Amino acid sequence: MSGKPERYTIGLIQMRCEPEPAANMDKAIARLQEAAKSGVQIACLPELFLSPYFCQREDPTLFDLAEPIPGPRTERLAAVARQTKMVVIASLFERRAAGLYHNTAVVFDADGTILGLYRKMHIPDDPLYYEKYYFTPGDLGFRVFPTRFGKVGTLVCWDQWYPEAARLTSLKGADVLFYPTAIGWHPSEKAEFGQRQHQAWELIQRSHALANGVYVAAVNRIGHEGPAGGGLEFWGASFISDPFGTVAARASHDREELLVYECDPKHLEDVRRHWPFLRDRRIDAYGDITRRLID
Amino acid sequence: MSGKPERYTIGLIQMRCEPEPAANMDKAIARLQEAAKSGVQIACLPELFLSPYFCQREDPTLFDLAEPIPGPRTERLAAVARQTKMVVIASLFERRAAGLYHNTAVVFDADGTILGLYRKMHIPDDPLYYEKYYFTPGDLGFRVFPTRFGKVGTLVCWDQWYPEAARLTSLKGADVLFYPTAIGWHPSEKAEFGQRQHQAWELIQRSHALANGVYVAAVNRIGHEGPAGGGLEFWGASFISDPFGTVAARASHDREELLVYECDPKHLEDVRRHWPFLRDRRIDAYGDITRRLID
Repeated sequence: MSGKPERYTIGLIQMRCEPEPAANMDKAIARLQEAAKSGVQIACLPELFLSPYFCQREDPTLFDLAEPIPGPRTERLAAVARQTKMVVIASLFERRAAGLYHNTAVVFDADGTILGLYRKMHIPDDPLYYEKYYFTPGDLGFRVFPTRFGKVGTLVCWDQWYPEAARLTSLKGADVLFYPTAIGWHPSEKAEFGQRQHQAWELIQRSHALANGVYVAAVNRIGHEGPAGGGLEFWGASFISDPFGTVAARASHDREELLVYECDPKHLEDVRRHWPFLRDRRIDAYGDITRRLID
Repeated sequence: MSGKPERYTIGLIQMRCEPEPAANMDKAIARLQEAAKSGVQIACLPELFLSPYFCQREDPTLFDLAEPIPGPRTERLAAVARQTKMVVIASLFERRAAGLYHNTAVVFDADGTILGLYRKMHIPDDPLYYEKYYFTPGDLGFRVFPTRFGKVGTLVCWDQWYPEAARLTSLKGADVLFYPTAIGWHPSEKAEFGQRQHQAWELIQRSHALANGVYVAAVNRIGHEGPAGGGLEFWGASFISDPFGTVAARASHDREELLVYECDPKHLEDVRRHWPFLRDRRIDAYGDITRRLID
């Protein structure tokens, strides 16, 4: 590590998303200000927090929700970061050009400058998660951002199922992987599969913490969106895993919450010394990872 | 899938390893025969089951434990496979040449032929696990074996911490990943860290099942080996995970057991349809996985 490692406090803002973007922006700003008052130094909002999860249907008018980056909304968020001296990670629907859109995480440093963007690399397309219609897969690769308080990596939702994404972001030096997320249950499936689905989601992300010796912080929305009996019930359960895959903090399934946790670079160093997985990687033998199937 | 997928039954032989190789061979053969009578079609023995876990110390005389493959011991195991019409996966200390040794899994098809070898790719070296002294890292890469009953991949112990190993073996078409293992607690650490260590070990392997949509079957030894108060207490807890990362069967921490489970290719197909992670891998962006660190 360079210099003396200092502890820093991260905060996850688990929220319900209202119908109107303006209301969500106001709520997010208020929560960010509360987080700063609670000592949070790096705060992360859920995926696409400015609107209901519009990917439940394919509708060309919904591209109106997208915005340029930088733009008026990133200016508002930048002002909050600057005012609170807090790093802010915000997931936005990016309009890059006419007909070209991304699902993008913006990282604001504690002085309000945009450190950079991460454009969601893995895009799902499953019933009620029709993201391939809206988002072009990211072309910026896997990214880390040297914020004032710590070096963080950003990944988004569906990325969480891919060990490669966590590995590459960690190899770039991330100490924390943030996963803004919008995942929930299909109400008709919840009774039979709901618990296993949530557990799988937590498990795969804890495994990234463990395999790479990094903190993982996943922040989800809550609430039901869509028609009664249909739609999606977002399962909340935002959580933070320590570098040994232990859940250090976990939010409820159904309440708005601020999850606060202090990350300790010394603990990360200690875990990696005792479980030195990075030492023994067979990089001479991993080349076929870039194949679709080895058939 | 080619042809009509049929279910098949796998069996994990969790055992205590005695001081003498001959006794362990006799025990293993007896257990394999019992497994076959229980309907097991693919059986797997723990890592280096023929002896105590000798890697607790570095001693050149212990290379005498190694054996050529094929050799007298593989002939005995081949006879059991042939006699029981069961696939057998056996982890052996391979003497490849003077001064060149591997930690090797041998896969016998149900007719007793050796389908092939897997030489442990990731070799640990940690207090009481001094494997780098004994084993040259494998040079056969990641492997799958089309047995009579199913296509299986073999990985060994320390490999289990590496998502790349599971991914590559799965991309080669494995439906089940077998992990012969020898892992245990340092008695002095058990009270404080034991539970978390065991949980991490299970978690990372379940994550491989989930990320790849494959069955995972890990078989460990039990018992304390080494001086009282020191040495290693092998934690057993052999388990089988289904392709969604759910623990389908788990053995105790301290008893010899045969763990039997029926794998269903249709379930595997179903999980992969509902959670189509293989569809969306960003193989254009994974090239840096072959770097030690991206610095």
